[in-house]
Order: sequence, then C-alpha cells, then structure tokens
Amino acid sequence: MIDEAASLNVGICQINLKVGDLEGNAAKIVESARVAAGQGADIITFPELALTGYPPEDLLLKPAFIRACGYYLEQIAAELPELVLLVGFPEQLRRLHNAAAFIHGGAVQAVYRKRLLPNYAVFDEQRYFVPGSGEHKLFDVGGVKLGVSICEDIWSPTGPALDQVRGGADVILNINASPYFLGRRWQRSAMLSTRASDMSTPIVYVNMVGGQDELVFDGGSLVYDSYGTLKYSLPQFEELIETVRVPLGAAGRKYQLDPRGLVADEVLDTVPIAPSLPVGSSHVASHSSDHPRFLFEPSPSFDKNWVSDLSDFYLDEILGALKLGLGDYVEKNRFARVVIALSGGIDSSLCAALAVAAIGPDRVTCISMPSRYSSEGSVSDAQKLADNLGIELLTGEIEPMHSAFSGVLAKVLGAAPEGLTDENLQSRIRGVLIMAYSNATGALVITTGNKSETATGYSTLYGDSAGGFALIKDIPKLLVYRLCERINTLEGKEVVPTEVLLKPPSAELRPGQRDVDSLPPYEELDPILMALVERDMTPMELVRAGFDSKLVTRVAGLIDRSEYKRRQVAPGVRITPKSFGKDRRMPITNGFDPEEVGFLGEP
Amino acid sequence: MIDEAASLNVGICQINLKVGDLEGNAAKIVESARVAAGQGADIITFPELALTGYPPEDLLLKPAFIRACGYYLEQIAAELPELVLLVGFPEQLRRLHNAAAFIHGGAVQAVYRKRLLPNYAVFDEQRYFVPGSGEHKLFDVGGVKLGVSICEDIWSPTGPALDQVRGGADVILNINASPYFLGRRWQRSAMLSTRASDMSTPIVYVNMVGGQDELVFDGGSLVYDSYGTLKYSLPQFEELIETVRVPLGAAGRKYQLDPRGLVADEVLDTVPIAPSLPVGSSHVASHSSDHPRFLFEPSPSFDKNWVSDLSDFYLDEILGALKLGLGDYVEKNRFARVVIALSGGIDSSLCAALAVAAIGPDRVTCISMPSRYSSEGSVSDAQKLADNLGIELLTGEIEPMHSAFSGVLAKVLGAAPEGLTDENLQSRIRGVLIMAYSNATGALVITTGNKSETATGYSTLYGDSAGGFALIKDIPKLLVYRLCERINTLEGKEVVPTEVLLKPPSAELRPGQRDVDSLPPYEELDPILMALVERDMTPMELVRAGFDSKLVTRVAGLIDRSEYKRRQVAPGVRITPKSFGKDRRMPITNGFDPEEVGFLGEP
Repeated sequence: MIDEAASLNVGICQINLKVGDLEGNAAKIVESARVAAGQGADIITFPELALTGYPPEDLLLKPAFIRACGYYLEQIAAELPELVLLVGFPEQLRRLHNAAAFIHGGAVQAVYRKRLLPNYAVFDEQRYFVPGSGEHKLFDVGGVKLGVSICEDIWSPTGPALDQVRGGADVILNINASPYFLGRRWQRSAMLSTRASDMSTPIVYVNMVGGQDELVFDGGSLVYDSYGTLKYSLPQFEELIETVRVPLGAAGRKYQLDPRGLVADEVLDTVPIAPSLPVGSSHVASHSSDHPRFLFEPSPSFDKNWVSDLSDFYLDEILGALKLGLGDYVEKNRFARVVIALSGGIDSSLCAALAVAAIGPDRVTCISMPSRYSSEGSVSDAQKLADNLGIELLTGEIEPMHSAFSGVLAKVLGAAPEGLTDENLQSRIRGVLIMAYSNATGALVITTGNKSETATGYSTLYGDSAGGFALIKDIPKLLVYRLCERINTLEGKEVVPTEVLLKPPSAELRPGQRDVDSLPPYEELDPILMALVERDMTPMELVRAGFDSKLVTRVAGLIDRSEYKRRQVAPGVRITPKSFGKDRRMPITNGFDPEEVGFLGEP
Repeated sequence: MIDEAASLNVGICQINLKVGDLEGNAAKIVESARVAAGQGADIITFPELALTGYPPEDLLLKPAFIRACGYYLEQIAAELPELVLLVGFPEQLRRLHNAAAFIHGGAVQAVYRKRLLPNYAVFDEQRYFVPGSGEHKLFDVGGVKLGVSICEDIWSPTGPALDQVRGGADVILNINASPYFLGRRWQRSAMLSTRASDMSTPIVYVNMVGGQDELVFDGGSLVYDSYGTLKYSLPQFEELIETVRVPLGAAGRKYQLDPRGLVADEVLDTVPIAPSLPVGSSHVASHSSDHPRFLFEPSPSFDKNWVSDLSDFYLDEILGALKLGLGDYVEKNRFARVVIALSGGIDSSLCAALAVAAIGPDRVTCISMPSRYSSEGSVSDAQKLADNLGIELLTGEIEPMHSAFSGVLAKVLGAAPEGLTDENLQSRIRGVLIMAYSNATGALVITTGNKSETATGYSTLYGDSAGGFALIKDIPKLLVYRLCERINTLEGKEVVPTEVLLKPPSAELRPGQRDVDSLPPYEELDPILMALVERDMTPMELVRAGFDSKLVTRVAGLIDRSEYKRRQVAPGVRITPKSFGKDRRMPITNGFDPEEVGFLGEP
C-alpha cells in the first residue's frame, strides 16, 4: 500500500508535433521530458501518437514508416534512461496498434494498446489499427499503480479505465489527440468529471496541441480529482509542459467505502516500470485554476440564434483555433509568406486580420483586384484595412484581362460572355493573378470563402476558391461578423473598418449586385444550413420548426448540387461540430431528393 | 430432402443503379424482377445495397434517407407479391446494417445482415454499419435451402458461407458491390472457385454494374458449381438480367462423402420464405461460357514491365471501365455534353476518343487553345484527331490574355512573369477559357492529366487540372500510349494520329520544352511510381531492386510534395489497385522523409 498522504507528480507535455516528422518529434519528446524532469515529474506523459503526430493517415500503411517509429522510440529510451515516460506510438505486432509505451531504464518496459478505435466523423482508426485485447494491466511506478487509456477509451463508461480502477489503479492517465470543435471542451470536462467521480479516482487528461491540415488540436489538458473536481486546467492552443501534483491514497480517494461497488478487488497483472519515485519537487502548476472560464460557459446551443448568443469566451476560442490552424499550416509546410485577395468585404477582412495575428504583418501581402464593377468604397475599404493591419497592399486591375477574355470568348462562344459566365470569368481572372503572385513569390494563397458560401456553392471554382488554405470555410457568415467585431473590441480600435461591417454583402461581379439577389438573407440562411448540415435534420423537420418550406427545399438543393465544388477546395480549419471535409463524406453523383421523400420526414 | 436431380433457376439482376435515387432504383428493381420472372427465375437476386446504390457514403447518416429506404422496400414488396426477391438495402435496427431482404408475398420475410465490413482501401463500411450477429440462418424457398452472404463475407474462408454449408445449404448466394480494378476479376474467380470446391456447394456471385464518382462496378457476375468450375460468366460493364440454372442435390454436390469434414450436420435455423418453386423454364443463360477469356489471362504482374506485358484482353477491360465510368458520370449528373482541351498530345487524344466512345461524337466538343509556344504540329494534330473522331473543334488563342496578364503582373510583381510562373499562367488562362465555355453551355469539362503527372504534380492547379472529371488520372503515361494504340487497332484505322503517338511528350509552355526536362523518361518514371504508390515499397527496396538511388529519392519527394494538388483535383476512374483518391489518404502537412530513414528500409 502506498502512503495515505502520498502524491504523484505527473508531467503533462502538451506539445505541438508534426505529422510524419519522426526525427523532429522524437527530439521534441526528449527535450520536453527533460523540462518536465526539471519540474520534478515522477512520470512524464505525452499525447496519443505523439511520435507520429496525429492523424498520420496512410503513412501508417508504409512499412518503412512503422519501422522508423520503432527506431526512434528506441532512440528516445536510450537518451533518457533515468526518467519514466509514457509515449504514444504505433506498435506493429501481428497487426498495427494505436499504443502507448512506458519507457524507463533505456528500454520500453510495457505497452498499453487502445481498445476503442473511433471510425466516425473525422476519424478512420479502424482503417489502420486493431483494438488491444481485453487483458487489462496496471503499471507500477515506485509503488503507484497507474491505469492507462488512450483518447476514445475514456469516453465509454465501461471502457478499460473501469477495469483498471476495479483492479486498484491509483490514478488514470488518459492520453489524447482530441481535435477542437466548438463546445468540445465543455463535453470533455463534463465527461471527465463524471468518470473521475464515478470511479473515485483521479484522471490526468493529456491532449496534443497544434494544427494538422483541417484539424486543430486545442490542448487544454485537464486534471480531475476523485471527487470529479477540476484541479488543473492547461490553456488551449498553447504548447507547454506542466508538472502537476496528483494526490494519492486516502487523499486521492473520494469514497473510502466504495458505495457504488466499483472498486472491486479484481486481480490485474501489474507490470513493474520503475522501482522508486524520484523525489518530487514542490512545483505547483502555474496554469492551474480552480475555476476555468469554460466551466461557466454553457456549451453553444446550435439552435436558431446560436451565433448571436455566442459568448465572448467562445468567440475568443474560435479565434484561437483559427490562428493556430493557419499558423501551423504555414510553418509546418514552410511557407515564408501568405497572400490574400482583399475585396473590401468582410470575409477577406477577417482572413487578413487572422493572418496578421497568426504570423505577423511582415509576412502578409494583400492584393486588391478591382474590376469595372468594383465600387469606390471597396477599394478604399481594402486600403483602410491594410493600413489598420500594417500590411502591404498591391493592386492589379483585372480590366485588361477581362477585355481580352471577352474578345476571345466572343469568337469561341459566338457572343460575348454574360450573366454567370461573365461573373465567374472575373473571379477566375483574379484567381489566375493571385496564383501567379504565389508562383513568383512562394506565398501561400489564403482563400476567403465562409461556410455559408461553401455550403451553398456561392463561389467560383478556380476563382475566389483558388488557393492552398481555406481558412474560414467552416465559419458561417453571421459568425464572420461577430468575429470581426470581437477583433475590434479586443484590439481596442478599429481593425476591420466600420464601413466593412455595415455594408451589405456583395460579390461585385455585376453592377449593383448583392448576395441577397442569389441567396436568402444570411439571417435566414445560416440557421437552415446549421440544421441541415450539422444536425442532419430533414427538410420536413425544419418546416415543422417554422422554416419556410420553399426556402428549405431550395437551400437543401443548393447544398447537394455543390458537392463537386467542395471536393475541389483547399482544406480549412474545422470549427463546428460538422465541417465540410473528412467530417462529411457525401457522394457527388447523388440522386437523393429530400423533397421527393419529404413526407417521410415524419417520425 | 430435395430431388437429387433438382435445380434452381436463379435470376441475376446485374443492374446499374444510381446512388441516392431511391425512387428510380426501386422502379428498376421491380422492372428487372419482372424480366427475370419471365425468364423462369425461382429466386431473383440483386446487388449489395441495390436500393441505395453503392457507396451511399454519408447519406446513410441521414435519418430521412434511411426511413425512405424502408418505404421503398415496402413498395417493391407490394408490387411483386408472387415473386421471390433478394434485395440489398440498409436496415435500421438499434444500429444500421448492410443487409439483404428476402421479399415474397408482399412483405419482407427475412433479412440477412453482412458480417464482415471492409474498412480499407476505398471502403468505409465501419463508419456506417455494425456487423450482423453470429446467428446464421438458412432461407427455404420451395424446399431449397439458400445460404446468403454479402460481398466481403465470401472473401473469408471462415465466413458465414462455411456455417451455412455446414448447416446444409444447397447453394450460396453472394451479392456484391465490388468495384473494378485491374486484376480484380481474376482474384474473384480464383477465390470463388476455391470456396465452391472447398465447401462442395455452388456459388452464385451477383455484382453491380455502373460508375459512381471514382468507382466503376464492372458486373461480371459469376456462377460456380460445387467442383469449383465456372458455369456462367456474365459480361463486364454491361447491364443485364440473366437467369441461370444451378444444379442441386446429388448433381449439385461434388463430395457425396464430404472427405474434408466441412459439411457437418449442424442445426441452423431455417426461415421459410416461399412454400414452392415456380415451374422453372428451360431458359439457358445466353452469356454462359465454359471458358471465359479472363481465366486464361494471367493477372497483371505490376512489375517493372507490366504495362508493356499487358494483354489486349486487359487493355480492352480498361477501356471498358473508362467508358462506363465517364458515361455514367455524365448521364447520372445529367450533363448534355462534355468539353475537352485538345493540345495535340497523347493524353487529350485518349480522353477525346474515350468520350466519343462513351457518349457519341455529337455530345463532345473540343477546344484548341494555342499559345505563342505551340508548335504547328500540335494544332494540326488536334485538328486531325477531331476529324478522325467526327467532333467539333473550337479554337481560342490565348495570346491576348497572356499579354494582358503579363502587363498587369509586371506591375504587381515588379517584373514580367517568367519561368514556372509564366508556364502556369498559360495553363491557367486555358483553364479560365474552358471553364467559361462550360459555364456558357453547361458542358462538363474533362481534364486530361494522367497518373504519372498526377503522382508527380506535373500539372497546373486550376490550369490543365481545372474541370469536373479527371478521366485518366489513374492511367500511367506508358499505358496511355498502349490504350491509344489499342483503340486504333480495334477501330481498324487511325483514330489517334500516328504523329501524336510518335512525338515526344511536351507541355509546350516554353520554346522547345519537353517533359524530360522536368521529369525522368516515363520508361523510368512509371515503374518507380508503381512501386512507391501501388506497392508502398520503400525507396531502399527500390534501390536494392536496381533502381537509381537519386532518381528514386527525387520521385518520392515529388509524390509527397504534390499531395496538396491531388486534394484539389476532380474525381476520375479508378483503374489500378491503388488510385489517388479514397484509396490513398495521405496528409498534406507531412514531415516524413523516406530518405532520412532510408537505412531503416532494411527488413
């Protein structure tokens, strides 16, 4: 039995890793472990698949990649013989496992293998891994019995942690690569509090931080005591190493008498990892907090008014996710600069402000590409924004190309292009211009389409959608406004010009054009999109909820018919519970007509 | 016991269904069943998920879609009370199943639920379905005991068919949505022959036919007797309904004494479906054959010389897949026409010839878009091809736009665009022109990039890659040549001009440019790509196999660095065992360096 007043110092390495960069990740793991050891950590924990980054996708199918993982895991062990580490890695047995290695004494001492493999939403783990077998184990570090689980494992009330607690685990270590979406942190905290309390055992929840293509891992690691009370809360979107003190024994046990009968006297194999604990330091986690703000913020409702109801806390969280997602895409893919087409509208304004926040004004170039239909206000608004942000603004008129194309197309088509053809033409000329700038300078093109446009196909393929990173593709239009207003508030000055916030949205591809000529007003559109996309509601259910029948049918049709466009756009940061991308895999060729079977929407 | 000399007439409905079009699919199922009944079918079989088409992807997550499936299944049953049908559909119990319904007497009499759910390559079935429980059943139609399985189920030697045979199944019905790739039919035939012989029981293998985005279902349904001998072989890429006679009893049993101990006397629940068999007709399947050609064609080796070794049989099979894939994308998405940019090169020539074969010359428009660098030969070769195919050829010079862009870009960039920037510029001007034609006419743009280009990123995003269907993106360059030669042979005349076949590949984006200026010769490149992509070999393994080390490293780097381009291109027909698309899911942000860990390639 361990001392009733004992505690365990757990080093939480909430670090930012790069998918596939095994050498770099291994070096960062070693360096981070040394920092945690300096903080007095007895056991040093890393995120799920820390060695590979997450998600490594089909790299996991490459034999050389898996072999290299084994090599670098050995290197880590050899570098740090005196420490105790828990490191996520892919383990090749007869088949592949999503695993976590206990490393000590220069070698891997034991391995835990993930039991519950998510295969929904953005996850494809059953494509790569087989689940660990049922044999549960405890891991002994200096007499402290550790239960270990990986991410999804802890989301089941009957998962491995329960068996580990029944077998006498003093503490549960749960390592994660849990991607951000709005409201996710609230869900995590409610679940972890419940688990810790149910099982009368402390839980250390370690999450990854960083952007990887469309996903952002938000960090925000959490520690709960056996009463289900939050003891430590690490910040989101920030890489840091923090050693926290977890009470054990009587102090770490809510129910001495185990009233729920959960802590049975089952016998579990206990694998010795290290014979003794290092002398713990008196380090107190600087980011600990008894009352993190997110506990007091109701999770977003995603009902009709969710955007206008969204608190400043969540607006800031979204801004944090967008900044990290963009910043990491830029840095990890080694772009020196980004370039953004400034239209003078709200979407490109938000993108430019976020880019400046993510990588600094010196690395952001904007281009204004006015046409014969651009209003004077648009040009001056773009200039004002650029001035406010302190960024370079180039100008390239599209009129010479517009005229040239019109002339050639008049011969090809038999008549000069008009209507939608002419509108798309202008947008694509801009796409060619900005891509030429990108080719000549190496700058990454940020596209500026929001989720409302992406959903309805209100964009030009190879035009405004041309570029490498679709930063705000998961931000509905109404939320674009709220984020811009929030940026102005946070900066304490006008960053996004008031004129931009106030003028009606327009693509300015024909005289006097307004978005409302083609789309319902965003106040009507956005709630319908949320219901149809994020919530998979039927048109009939929306009609019963009071939405206009014709409008709902029209919007549902727009969504289905623009799947082919979404298939060809760049990745962007996932923000909502269901983004376009890996989260939503719809066929392009699709004969399902929700209207035809609308009457079947009746429950 | 059934009559020793009895037989069962099985109607095979190898039909082409449209994903999501429940009303259309249900109508086609009813109509097909009537045809099979007219042929004397006792039991009428349909492909896996026939009601929804395959793969329905995230439509399966829509509650209204699942409810509508139930509705249409009832409609089918109500239409055909006198017949016995086996129809694939998604069944909602507590969770969703990939299921097959026995329909008779105006209702669903029983349901089989797929046990083995593929979640690899292009398949994501564990995203949607849970496996059927272990309770196996037999289904009794007029005293004949039917064992049923769905697709993947039959690929395991210990799958449900084995239990069904042990329980006394007279025949195994296996319904499929098995997508085409090169060599797949040979694999199917070897497996089915083995299973039928192992189990001493006839197998009826029913496959879907048709194109769905990147997949082509090739049909080619097969019937094996209990000796493992192929009795009937339906054609590939062709929709048809065929009733075949399957011998039962002594005649249908290879081993009367069951020397392998497989046919045990297990007791399985037998569900009555229909009390008696209709009087079978004397219909003999017109497509039956004792010696289909594919049995005598060795499966492609995919070794260094596989393309040059490929037989005419397989070349024809590939042409069939491409035609069906394109034709169905056009028809199912209701395009009246297609448009193709003709460069005078081999890739666009193949695409034009295939388009004419798929939808006829009257629905194909080509555009020649010469530049200041286009050779005279290119323009005349394009004209010659168009004349050979009898298709319209429009011309749009890009010089006016090229000059206009150069002027504006000189101001934006401080100097006129040159090098790669100028090359991409020309390609993108063509992209804008052809997209304008598409917008004005509604024609689908077919892009012409081959697999060698797609793999190495030797293409211009939003330029030559702009379009809705990337027909030959899974055809390596050397195979493009062989297919063009084969078309000329089949047509008995020069369709693709000899000049096109003979001239060295060039993008013609600068004076005297040749592909070999940027890429290794295709004779060297293609085998490396096959080894790295299709076979996931390590660079080190290739070097040991005799490839040049520097070349392999360079090609591996090109593949990794162009992932972002592939993420933004249109779908195209899957032909090889591993296409770019759902088959190969690589991260864009990817720090894995095969060279860095090259030494780890040692086994």
